[in-house]
Amino acid sequence: MDGQTALKWLDEAAEFSEPGPGVTRMFLSDQHRALIDWLQQKAKSLDLDCTLDDSGNFVMRRPSTTPNARTLLIGSHQDSVRNGGKYDGMLGIIAPMLTLARMEPLPYHVEVIAFGDEEGVRFSSTLIGSSAIAGEFDQDILPRKDRNNIAVRDAMALFGLNPDNISSIARDPATIMGFLEMHIEQGPILEEHNAPVGLVTALTGIERHKVTIKGRAGHAGTVPMHLRDDALVKAATLVTQIHKICSETEGLVGVIGELEVKPNAVNVIPAQVDLTIELRAPDDQTRHTAREQILSFLNEINGATSQCVYQKSGFYCDPQLVEHIEHAIAAQGHDVIRLFSGAGHDGLAMHRLTPSAMIFVRCKDGLSHHPDEAITSQDCAIAMNVLEAVLQRLAQTPH
Amino acid sequence: MDGQTALKWLDEAAEFSEPGPGVTRMFLSDQHRALIDWLQQKAKSLDLDCTLDDSGNFVMRRPSTTPNARTLLIGSHQDSVRNGGKYDGMLGIIAPMLTLARMEPLPYHVEVIAFGDEEGVRFSSTLIGSSAIAGEFDQDILPRKDRNNIAVRDAMALFGLNPDNISSIARDPATIMGFLEMHIEQGPILEEHNAPVGLVTALTGIERHKVTIKGRAGHAGTVPMHLRDDALVKAATLVTQIHKICSETEGLVGVIGELEVKPNAVNVIPAQVDLTIELRAPDDQTRHTAREQILSFLNEINGATSQCVYQKSGFYCDPQLVEHIEHAIAAQGHDVIRLFSGAGHDGLAMHRLTPSAMIFVRCKDGLSHHPDEAITSQDCAIAMNVLEAVLQRLAQTPH
Repeated sequence: MDGQTALKWLDEAAEFSEPGPGVTRMFLSDQHRALIDWLQQKAKSLDLDCTLDDSGNFVMRRPSTTPNARTLLIGSHQDSVRNGGKYDGMLGIIAPMLTLARMEPLPYHVEVIAFGDEEGVRFSSTLIGSSAIAGEFDQDILPRKDRNNIAVRDAMALFGLNPDNISSIARDPATIMGFLEMHIEQGPILEEHNAPVGLVTALTGIERHKVTIKGRAGHAGTVPMHLRDDALVKAATLVTQIHKICSETEGLVGVIGELEVKPNAVNVIPAQVDLTIELRAPDDQTRHTAREQILSFLNEINGATSQCVYQKSGFYCDPQLVEHIEHAIAAQGHDVIRLFSGAGHDGLAMHRLTPSAMIFVRCKDGLSHHPDEAITSQDCAIAMNVLEAVLQRLAQTPH
Repeated sequence: MDGQTALKWLDEAAEFSEPGPGVTRMFLSDQHRALIDWLQQKAKSLDLDCTLDDSGNFVMRRPSTTPNARTLLIGSHQDSVRNGGKYDGMLGIIAPMLTLARMEPLPYHVEVIAFGDEEGVRFSSTLIGSSAIAGEFDQDILPRKDRNNIAVRDAMALFGLNPDNISSIARDPATIMGFLEMHIEQGPILEEHNAPVGLVTALTGIERHKVTIKGRAGHAGTVPMHLRDDALVKAATLVTQIHKICSETEGLVGVIGELEVKPNAVNVIPAQVDLTIELRAPDDQTRHTAREQILSFLNEINGATSQCVYQKSGFYCDPQLVEHIEHAIAAQGHDVIRLFSGAGHDGLAMHRLTPSAMIFVRCKDGLSHHPDEAITSQDCAIAMNVLEAVLQRLAQTPH
């Protein structure tokens, strides 16, 4: 039950995909169903009890010999982006299953959960499964439709789930010890530090703004420069300023990822630019301060308006779990690289239920959401050893 | 035969259009044919001789009583952009026809020409008719196709023209006195100076470059700022720099009119930006110097490449014709506003044949290439008076 086995299983799991390149496995799809059937076989071979909950989470449980012990939750998501990789999500399901299988009985229950929906590609949703377990499921998502006009509610019913029962999935915090997730880093920091694993200190909060900058169209030859109101020239100052603010602020990243020019013709002065701003920081105050700086700059641009269209707070990982992971990494003889997660994860929902933390695994070239996403079996083996050590440490502490 | 008549005729001519809003009249279209038929009637009523040459120019001639006199050419284009205005082009055909009609016999021949193709929308060509008259017609244009896959050559044949005869259209420079064009300004300068007409000193040269700036895509949350290579951030510096160079250089305008971001997603670091640069200056050296400055800045941007895709030299209007126009404007009691044309015009071809100059007419809000394009009958009348005075002054000079 080592890293090589994990990578072999991950290769097998990647077969449950729409046609490639890469892995495309949507929430409540035929591929999702096929993956669950396969997971059930594997879980049986490892002596784990299986249930599929009514939000689409597949839960594999190893009960403790102490019936009234609390439960440690471990897991990640089964769904992918379109043409994604084999490791984003599935690593955090397969590696814990195999780790658990080689360990002696533990004084607490353990559940490995394959969350149904984290990427949220099919329904433009996110964290449906982990929100349900955390008791924070948003019923307003049920009527939301995919691009084939199938609502979440109907897709759940077709999958054999009972969406009206989702509120009962919520766990009682008193019965849960914590939540751990192993995930590929999806970034280049561990590779830069030549470290196989990383200690996640926080999960980033995210906000997104839609911005429109209006100028005045005009003939690119006949309007003198001093009479122009070029929307793109104004937008360029914003792009530069946001990059500057983000580069100069510790623990903040930000990007203008989308930008469209209208009318977008070689000889017409740009009349309008529509763009999106995204800011991420593990610390909400850092993000709020940057937002104020950016909006204050933006408000000085004639013709610029903005609207916040998405906002999710970040959180700091549980200090005690972080300490366990730190010791576990050091005990394996590796430098402890502390980093925050710039991507969202199921922890954003789970930390509302229970103390949560994450272990990152180095991925090749920091690449993710791509068919070429890759990890090594050596790094996977180290991550499994770290997880095992954390589980052992938890066995030593009151539970 | 005053400004009001001219505007009435221009309203009539605007009816020869594809469905609106505005005027859409392509080269060698049914609407072009209908316009020629209408012009022929009008020309007859003014006692002008008519011919349609084999490049599609409709030529209305008032011969002098001196048979071996030279010929003054006056004209503008009949074609429009899609959903353009009533005055761009047609003003320079109708107003000279009416001006000529009210004048006593002149000691030189005059031809008013409705050039077939100046906007070049249908075949992505420009100046087909004026190039033919100037003896610079490019035969390579003949196989070029419109969006219905009809070649220029075939469209000409369908129109009853003989494209193989175009070289014979070229005029002998010894027989031509000069070329005059009256055109709406298509910009805001005359309005800014509260002047009905303007003296064009030069026609701008134009160059266009396609630029690609490559960066590296990445997850907008997981790649730290210092490891990013954001193509849009790099492009923003170029937008700012080009605007700065153009604003600080007398007699130069420039714009980045087209810009596309790839992959253009809210949470992905821009991997590539494709954009176009257009520079215009009446003085080629000014434009070349600016180009060098811009390319030198661009070459410092990692991952940026550029390609010049279009270049046309500008020219200075003929000093003697400019002097005639200057005196004519002043004689009407108006300030002489000297300006260069930032737009291209048939003069770009005609000046290769004969001394050329232009008179601009103020247009509302500087607006052109738009259904709302407008001039006043008062301004039109003043322009006609100026033209008449120029023709009279030419009658006094050796011809």
